[in-house]
Amino acid sequence: MLNNIVKPTLLLNKARAIHNIETMISKAARSGVRFRPHFKTHQSAAIGDWFQERGVAAITVSSVDMARYFANHGWQDITIAFPVNVREIDKINALAKTITLNLLAESEESVHFLGSRLMHPAKLWIKIDTGYHRTGLSWDHGEKIAALAGTIAQEKRLTFQGLLTHSGHSYRARSQQQVREIYADTIAKMQATREGLRQAGFTGVEISIGDTPSCSIVENFSGVDEIRPGNFVFYDATQLAIGSCLVGQIAVAVACPVVAKHQERQELIIYGGAVHLSKDVLVQSFEPWGEKPTYGAIALPEGSGWGPILSNAYVAGISQEHGVVKVLQEDFDRINVGDLLMVIPVHSCLTAHLLRKYVTLEGEVLELANLS
Amino acid sequence: MLNNIVKPTLLLNKARAIHNIETMISKAARSGVRFRPHFKTHQSAAIGDWFQERGVAAITVSSVDMARYFANHGWQDITIAFPVNVREIDKINALAKTITLNLLAESEESVHFLGSRLMHPAKLWIKIDTGYHRTGLSWDHGEKIAALAGTIAQEKRLTFQGLLTHSGHSYRARSQQQVREIYADTIAKMQATREGLRQAGFTGVEISIGDTPSCSIVENFSGVDEIRPGNFVFYDATQLAIGSCLVGQIAVAVACPVVAKHQERQELIIYGGAVHLSKDVLVQSFEPWGEKPTYGAIALPEGSGWGPILSNAYVAGISQEHGVVKVLQEDFDRINVGDLLMVIPVHSCLTAHLLRKYVTLEGEVLELANLS
Repeated sequence: MLNNIVKPTLLLNKARAIHNIETMISKAARSGVRFRPHFKTHQSAAIGDWFQERGVAAITVSSVDMARYFANHGWQDITIAFPVNVREIDKINALAKTITLNLLAESEESVHFLGSRLMHPAKLWIKIDTGYHRTGLSWDHGEKIAALAGTIAQEKRLTFQGLLTHSGHSYRARSQQQVREIYADTIAKMQATREGLRQAGFTGVEISIGDTPSCSIVENFSGVDEIRPGNFVFYDATQLAIGSCLVGQIAVAVACPVVAKHQERQELIIYGGAVHLSKDVLVQSFEPWGEKPTYGAIALPEGSGWGPILSNAYVAGISQEHGVVKVLQEDFDRINVGDLLMVIPVHSCLTAHLLRKYVTLEGEVLELANLS
Repeated sequence: MLNNIVKPTLLLNKARAIHNIETMISKAARSGVRFRPHFKTHQSAAIGDWFQERGVAAITVSSVDMARYFANHGWQDITIAFPVNVREIDKINALAKTITLNLLAESEESVHFLGSRLMHPAKLWIKIDTGYHRTGLSWDHGEKIAALAGTIAQEKRLTFQGLLTHSGHSYRARSQQQVREIYADTIAKMQATREGLRQAGFTGVEISIGDTPSCSIVENFSGVDEIRPGNFVFYDATQLAIGSCLVGQIAVAVACPVVAKHQERQELIIYGGAVHLSKDVLVQSFEPWGEKPTYGAIALPEGSGWGPILSNAYVAGISQEHGVVKVLQEDFDRINVGDLLMVIPVHSCLTAHLLRKYVTLEGEVLELANLS
């Protein structure tokens, strides 16, 4: 199978992805929380089926167009985990007519807008900021949050569903303990916010949390109603560095042809650059080179897939189509022009988005949604 | 026209792009060098036509598939400016059969491979490293270069065309003077290498150079046979920071809807993230925030396009779909949820690649090549 690869190709170990899916389904079931996986990572109806066949009924997406794609593939309960984009109201109305649509708001303006322009019922979550500081109302702005919940309750087509957060700062953690601390902090804040709403008269308020590090590392989600991890289906070099996964859980790698070798710098040039891997970067320590920014970890081909990650090799630089791979002398000597190197992406979501299709180790081709 | 935009949309000011094309054509003509523009920036047959209509006959691309796309659109003389990927020999042979194909090599193995597997004539350039240290034989390894030229000359289907370099280190320059120094250094090295080859008996060896900063800033290309800039057709925030272009030459911007506002941090959230802009980053100084990494410069809508760049606003962070835009209080107050912000990309090549289509200010839609 690898013999037929002539250019950067996204390989998918389906058995590992299914193992990751089943592990997260079991864990959510043990905690009694709704599992609403984020499909922005894989963006594929075929991979969505692997979840659906195992009983998953509700999903998360990151754009209105992605919601349309999965609604067209049979998904009936979708959360668009992005602040409502008022310019897309026509597409939102078309979706709200046919599926159970969950939206996010964080401002009175957006809720008023939906109140006046939404033609069909939708569930609305208030986005809460528990420390990532990207979007959302700060968890301790209780009055503002209660006021917004009140505004939502007054709009007849909107149902106030609960509080939703994404603790994206867990991606900066570099140990399981740090992730557990971020999770505990997140949950304490979300519960305090919910308690404030209860005292203001709002009952049945759900809590939804999202990030892959927390969902992978924490064992018990008591006090939470819903989890929305996405990246866990594939994992990647960043999740490995955080401690969210074992190396044997990483389900994707990019097969890249070697096109040149530079002995004087112990560097291999691969066909595999920013338009394949993305420019997302991770700082890691490599012997003997010390702390370095990297654009991917390196493994060698093995069977129809890839073997262990080389501890002393890394993608040291990328331009549009080129990748520069730093290796030890022994690896330099055994890798030749025309060979394939397997790059474990820094951020599998962006790499999958760029490469537009998966090739499973069995040779099946799965396309990503075309949302452009 | 802007009223119809509902999601991140790549706007193209066609008049500016054509001005940039005509400026570079005139400059090349004045120096008497062949103009072989790099089409990896725009990846569009329609934009290619704007060059063709003005007399350009030879182009550069960065992959075999891109060469196929432009060959299918009538281009007859193409350089694939990437080390020969031996795994793509079947596609290379199909191209060599129908067009004048220029390839790059930097090793004896690659040349031997082409010697035994290439079925049709091709021109071969030796890739020279003049200081960027990505690919190529170091300019001062004269014996190695002469030996490789000799190997090429012995292969009956290969014609040794000359020496090709890409001074990509000019992208790290932050003044026109620095770019001029890099250019002068590049030319001195390339001419010394050519002189070495002449003494070894090789005549008619051409010199091809490539980077947009040098080609934009330097006025006279004497001693060079060919220039291959690509980015200049659009320019971007990086080229502006280098001094390669004026702000009025930047021909692309991404229209992004504002979806949230955060007063406490003076931040606007836009629908426009890593899957639209790329994660390419530029460090710049912004008052009152100091030196900051940025993922794009900010302008406001004006007419059917965009106005001046705001000197105190920048894209401070991005995730998959979100962009975080830092603004001054006066801008924060006048920009509302639902408005559009215009993001001048850090790296227009990657942004165009991600967004897959252009919308001209006149409303025409131009698709990029689908090479996946």
